[in-house]
Amino acid sequence: MQLEPIGIVESPLTDRDAAPKQGDEGAPAAWIVFDARVADALDGLDVGDALLVLTWLDRARRDVLRVRPRSDPARRVQGVFSTRSPDRPNPIGLHRVTVLAIEGVRVRVSDLEALDGTPVVDVKPVLRSVDER
Amino acid sequence: MQLEPIGIVESPLTDRDAAPKQGDEGAPAAWIVFDARVADALDGLDVGDALLVLTWLDRARRDVLRVRPRSDPARRVQGVFSTRSPDRPNPIGLHRVTVLAIEGVRVRVSDLEALDGTPVVDVKPVLRSVDER
Repeated sequence: MQLEPIGIVESPLTDRDAAPKQGDEGAPAAWIVFDARVADALDGLDVGDALLVLTWLDRARRDVLRVRPRSDPARRVQGVFSTRSPDRPNPIGLHRVTVLAIEGVRVRVSDLEALDGTPVVDVKPVLRSVDER
Repeated sequence: MQLEPIGIVESPLTDRDAAPKQGDEGAPAAWIVFDARVADALDGLDVGDALLVLTWLDRARRDVLRVRPRSDPARRVQGVFSTRSPDRPNPIGLHRVTVLAIEGVRVRVSDLEALDGTPVVDVKPVLRSVDER
């Protein structure tokens, strides 16, 4: 169960503590720079597509099982599987974005709250029938 | 970038070719049996919660970059990043489910199209503001 990076995030975000927690909390546009070896997997991507980007949150802690989310005004302790905390046993980030531009293997996307240099591990289309029902 | 299994799927589905492609295509309910070491991360999960379950699709091919999805009547070739094909460089499955029951570290969920024995690698809450906007 070894993940291989398929690309990397190029973003103005460099500070985890200052970064927005979700893409709709003021996250900037960013580039995803894909490895040339997965270029064929990009076939059919278009500007305007809604995508789910999966990242490897390489600056997260993997030994954290419970957190006090900042999004909870009462700051109650919760298991990480009830939160989007980056700290979790397998720190996979899930980001909903929109494609803004495509230049070869460089894809510009909106609202990506991942830090500069974060490895990208998968990209999936949003399926409205499944993900939004 | 080494994933550690946090649990495993117990499902009546055993045949990849016969399995539904998405949870809303007749996928059955299934159990997720979590490892005791991540039990604390389940704190706060409740019956009725909408969850995203991330799995490692251990029977998928990782060398496939383009497919002809069965869901496309014209069977056009598409890059896997525009599809939900299990065959992709990092075969992470993303499944939207609802919690039906919780018995210790055993969690019963609806509509899980993963095969019996599939490793589970993460669980996240559905954020309606993000995932459904």
